[in-house]
Amino acid sequence: MKTTEDFKTYYAVIFTSTLKTNAEGYHEMAEKMEALAKLQPGFLGIDSARNSVGITICYWESIDAIIKWKQQSEYLTAQEKGKTDWHSLYNVKICKVEREYSLSALQ
Amino acid sequence: MKTTEDFKTYYAVIFTSTLKTNAEGYHEMAEKMEALAKLQPGFLGIDSARNSVGITICYWESIDAIIKWKQQSEYLTAQEKGKTDWHSLYNVKICKVEREYSLSALQ
Repeated sequence: MKTTEDFKTYYAVIFTSTLKTNAEGYHEMAEKMEALAKLQPGFLGIDSARNSVGITICYWESIDAIIKWKQQSEYLTAQEKGKTDWHSLYNVKICKVEREYSLSALQ
Repeated sequence: MKTTEDFKTYYAVIFTSTLKTNAEGYHEMAEKMEALAKLQPGFLGIDSARNSVGITICYWESIDAIIKWKQQSEYLTAQEKGKTDWHSLYNVKICKVEREYSLSALQ
């Protein structure tokens, strides 16, 4: 296990959601939002998985980078669409990542 | 969108992983670990989804609660097993949840 001693805190936006049974167009918009995030200053990465609940976590250098990303009109548009059309439940958490451990190994 | 003004910070442990192709026994141990976490003081909830990457996030009242949970021998056993047998890649992030927004609606 590797622990980085000079660890620099960064931020995670955790988005969890449950889709309505009729969620046409959701996946196209999710891909568009991911592509947009990757273009923003301060973007560090993204993790995403979906079963009955969907989890997307994107990582940012700072709260300021998150605010600028949120201000992007396409993101706001997608969020509004999400509230009205796609999700029966969603939750957004803004978190400061304080410690991290990782392992990578050959298969 | 609901924002809780008297929001009390809490903690999230983000666990992301990629399983090896031969990961026999993983799901049984994952269920056992989830059941164990739910019994611990300070446990607040869990979100989990898996596609090509698996994401599990568990939420805790404090860092102290996370440390006590980690000290549980079954958790440590599972982690060791995970490092050697199941995962080709895994990462653990300890985060402070600073802000939260949510929406719930009828289907």
